[in-house]
Amino acid sequence: MNDIIFYCDFSSPYSYIAAEKIDALAAKHGRRVDWRPILIGAIFQQTGAVPLVQLPLKGDYSLRDFPRSARFHGLPFKMPTRFPLPTQSAARAFYVIAERDALLARDFARAVFRALFVEDRDISDLAVVLEIAARFGIDSDELSQAVATSAVKEQLKRATETAAAQGVFGVPFFIVDQEPFWGADRLPQVDQWLATGGF
Amino acid sequence: MNDIIFYCDFSSPYSYIAAEKIDALAAKHGRRVDWRPILIGAIFQQTGAVPLVQLPLKGDYSLRDFPRSARFHGLPFKMPTRFPLPTQSAARAFYVIAERDALLARDFARAVFRALFVEDRDISDLAVVLEIAARFGIDSDELSQAVATSAVKEQLKRATETAAAQGVFGVPFFIVDQEPFWGADRLPQVDQWLATGGF
Repeated sequence: MNDIIFYCDFSSPYSYIAAEKIDALAAKHGRRVDWRPILIGAIFQQTGAVPLVQLPLKGDYSLRDFPRSARFHGLPFKMPTRFPLPTQSAARAFYVIAERDALLARDFARAVFRALFVEDRDISDLAVVLEIAARFGIDSDELSQAVATSAVKEQLKRATETAAAQGVFGVPFFIVDQEPFWGADRLPQVDQWLATGGF
Repeated sequence: MNDIIFYCDFSSPYSYIAAEKIDALAAKHGRRVDWRPILIGAIFQQTGAVPLVQLPLKGDYSLRDFPRSARFHGLPFKMPTRFPLPTQSAARAFYVIAERDALLARDFARAVFRALFVEDRDISDLAVVLEIAARFGIDSDELSQAVATSAVKEQLKRATETAAAQGVFGVPFFIVDQEPFWGADRLPQVDQWLATGGF
């Protein structure tokens, strides 16, 4: 059984919602999830897309839809003071931790999302990322050095390029046995796809 | 109880899906639906938005998501040969028929959507619109004259302007007791909103 590929960006509210839901959904169907944080801004630069909140009318609507969609899914949500924001440090830290322990990296990722979208922390700040990682027993000095290496920078760049090559234009984005699904609101379709093997 | 306002454009696949679902959903909660076909292209001109299928990557994805979303909702779907296309004639005919009989206008509207998204008819052609209306006993000569009046042209223009003033930037768009919902994928939230009076 293929893992479900889950592309997300730590600055995306709908990625936060998906991050809280996708593992249980996959487990229900005996699947696992391959988490891949990316820099969606780099893809937007290629496609000419603009962050949702900057779009006329749609931006205002999205500020209402973010918390409502979170409530719909039973999740806490507080609009961050700083948004959108750079997520390089958090994403690189994810890949460093994932090299050691994929499950730990996932817990770290969910904690990063909550830090931004529940606790209103500035996750673009490496110190905040290190502090979140420290909650999981990750040594701050080691992680601080690791996220600065060209190897991990390259890894995040490659993940983003792979996403673009797979047709990812927004996040969250799921790939289930080659089938692409965009948006937290496609989770019901992902569920049905997994249940039926395609429809 | 306020009616649910339902903004749609006859050239929108997700409006087609919503059109097949919204009345039953509303009726479940003892509500009725105020159907308002508009010209979403006129709003796109104001906001600078582009038709979905013309966007890089997102366009390709949408061509896969349209039929899949229809199947997910148990609806037939065939991508129209001509798409997107002008919907003035169909929308004006809707308002002419609605003056006479709101329920008949709704049946006509669903038939227009099916003509485009199931039967691959060119609904930008007034002759096709008249033929669909004729199935409901509407006299083609009368309707042909009525859709050409400045009164009905003005009515469609006003509906579109009202939509823009209410924050509509895409279709389908629902307004439930002042609360805006965009997209066929927000129907579950509309359902919950109606069930609970807001969440």
